[in-house]
Amino acid sequence: MSIDIKNFLSESAKHMKKSAIRELLAVANKPEIISFGGGFPNPETFPVEELKGIVQDLLVEKPEVMLQYGTTGGSIPLRTQLKKKYERDGIQCELDNIIITTASQQAIDLITKTFIDPGDTILCGLPTYLGALQSFNAYRANLVGTKRIEDSEEIIEKLIAEGKKPKFIYAIPDFQNPSGETMNLEQRKKLINLAQKYNIYVIEDSPYKDIRFEGTSYPTMFSLDPERVILLGTFSKTFAPGFRLGWVLASLDVVDRINTAKQTTDLCTSIFNQELAARYMEEGYFDKNLKKTVQLYRKKRDLMVKYLGEFMPEGVSWTHPEGGLFLFVTLPENLNSTELFKIAIKENVAFVIGEVFFCDGSGQNTLRLNFSYASDENIKEGVRRLAVSIKKLMEIKK
Amino acid sequence: MSIDIKNFLSESAKHMKKSAIRELLAVANKPEIISFGGGFPNPETFPVEELKGIVQDLLVEKPEVMLQYGTTGGSIPLRTQLKKKYERDGIQCELDNIIITTASQQAIDLITKTFIDPGDTILCGLPTYLGALQSFNAYRANLVGTKRIEDSEEIIEKLIAEGKKPKFIYAIPDFQNPSGETMNLEQRKKLINLAQKYNIYVIEDSPYKDIRFEGTSYPTMFSLDPERVILLGTFSKTFAPGFRLGWVLASLDVVDRINTAKQTTDLCTSIFNQELAARYMEEGYFDKNLKKTVQLYRKKRDLMVKYLGEFMPEGVSWTHPEGGLFLFVTLPENLNSTELFKIAIKENVAFVIGEVFFCDGSGQNTLRLNFSYASDENIKEGVRRLAVSIKKLMEIKK
Repeated sequence: MSIDIKNFLSESAKHMKKSAIRELLAVANKPEIISFGGGFPNPETFPVEELKGIVQDLLVEKPEVMLQYGTTGGSIPLRTQLKKKYERDGIQCELDNIIITTASQQAIDLITKTFIDPGDTILCGLPTYLGALQSFNAYRANLVGTKRIEDSEEIIEKLIAEGKKPKFIYAIPDFQNPSGETMNLEQRKKLINLAQKYNIYVIEDSPYKDIRFEGTSYPTMFSLDPERVILLGTFSKTFAPGFRLGWVLASLDVVDRINTAKQTTDLCTSIFNQELAARYMEEGYFDKNLKKTVQLYRKKRDLMVKYLGEFMPEGVSWTHPEGGLFLFVTLPENLNSTELFKIAIKENVAFVIGEVFFCDGSGQNTLRLNFSYASDENIKEGVRRLAVSIKKLMEIKK
Repeated sequence: MSIDIKNFLSESAKHMKKSAIRELLAVANKPEIISFGGGFPNPETFPVEELKGIVQDLLVEKPEVMLQYGTTGGSIPLRTQLKKKYERDGIQCELDNIIITTASQQAIDLITKTFIDPGDTILCGLPTYLGALQSFNAYRANLVGTKRIEDSEEIIEKLIAEGKKPKFIYAIPDFQNPSGETMNLEQRKKLINLAQKYNIYVIEDSPYKDIRFEGTSYPTMFSLDPERVILLGTFSKTFAPGFRLGWVLASLDVVDRINTAKQTTDLCTSIFNQELAARYMEEGYFDKNLKKTVQLYRKKRDLMVKYLGEFMPEGVSWTHPEGGLFLFVTLPENLNSTELFKIAIKENVAFVIGEVFFCDGSGQNTLRLNFSYASDENIKEGVRRLAVSIKKLMEIKK
């Protein structure tokens, strides 16, 4: 007898969707296509020479640690470095407030597993990070989006009246993915006050905070309420995504629960990679390389904004992020970015359609552009091709 | 207002238990204690020199691959090597039948997430691997254990009559953890036939198969029914657990579902580590090092069995595994291994109490001993201390 997997799937599996980004990018995986699609860091930022030295040193010094099982909480040297990094930012914490995760996607998964039963509400941005939406969907959360912080209180009160108080608010306050926008201090305080008033956790997903091109950095939401805010960090944008290293900074009881969940999920994160990252920070390479990364991405952001200004037809607008990897484009209301995608692929340029970032299905006239990965020449040529594609779509829709 | 995490936990989080092994071993983490507790490979088996060369080569050849995001399915070179390995064992498969996971604990988690709703039944061994039981509990599975393959049909029929047909059977056919026992060919066929007759998946967890000291290897259960059996492999015992690398070999539809689940969980497994493992296999180091590992562990198994024979009082019995890392000790029925543990810690020897491996709470007079990690001298001295502890407990219980 043959076996039909459909008869065996959990409700969770039935609710999981393949990443639209990964599916779309598979289409766009031809050498002639210039891709503004993924969230890839630029390979120029990879610290190859530094790594050669570090690996040799560590394989001499402590191979029996590097190659063995680690603890679920994570390597002491790495957590020590992270603690020092936070202390330099004025945040006091203990090693036990930090748990190392298999990049921050795992942190999102473990937190959702820890808090969310089917039907539980999560309040998130409109738009917000697709990977988080996918995790939330796998646990069958009730996703409610808000366009503006200023509308949050009304939404929360309405949810409470319906018996659907959010378990947590998911926020990306710095150079948001996909919008590129940053919450100012007032907005951060507003959100924390709401969380306190209505007794809700806040997830502060913070992959891009260190990649600021200009202006003054705002305090983390964690620093405003370390008991209520769960901060997620990652090395994927500031060191190398190939190591799959992230972390959670949170209260002891939250970290303890995430630790228990992580035990059942992958026991521990690669100690080999954790020790590399710890030494990389100890040697001062992290800070040095971050500076170069910021310079590189600032230049690329400038180029993309410049060519958007030069090439885009009237009626198209875009955000001007002060950091991060992405900017967000809004088309005139009658244009659909999925239709645009089909034209753009023929013009050999790719992006991510915006609607995948909206939990309410809106955002059909939006798209996300990544500026970190493409070469300078390709940023110019890609934006030109995109403008050509938009003009073609405008002709069709006239 | 202060926040109380207990009011926010999911049902899943409420059902998760901390690993008894990790908690017990934390107690036993003093230098004077000889530990037969964890499942650690011996550091002597770590291929440090080979790794030094491989890392340098790869960081010259393809840093932009090693350090970047990878695909969720896993690195092509690594899957190619695994495919070749299976072909040498007479198993034909395509690259798409293999997905790389963050060690096999993640594979267990993803499979459980894909198949199990709260209350769904899993049939497993009595005893069986604790890490699997923890994952199953996190998804609130109904766990039913069987001591003998021969009893399985009756158990399955009873479950079906109660409307509780198992979604899958979880088996570790080679050098089982914790028992050290191996299913013979007849038993494998019996289990496959039952799975076919009653239309059930089989999870074949296979971390130890390559570590055979003597006798002839049996075919994998996967080779007996590649559509119905989901095979889990890992590099944690035959290369290095520090890399957190495992894989699933299964039908295309199963791999596709695991892929979707993995996207939401950690996006992809460290490509840096995957490329290392691929090159390690390509260079022939895997096979060469495996031979040394088998020799080392055979000697250690022999030593442990020898000293058990010399030191243990009458009434104590143990398994004689033909491979793997563990053997299983049974005390006289009136002795409890948790009580023994307290005495043993004072005598400076540690093990894992057996009952944590039994989903029905039985096995109180059993314990698991690991023979891969301790030095030869410590195996002798540790077994001597354990025998002293057992005799002391016997005195108390007289």
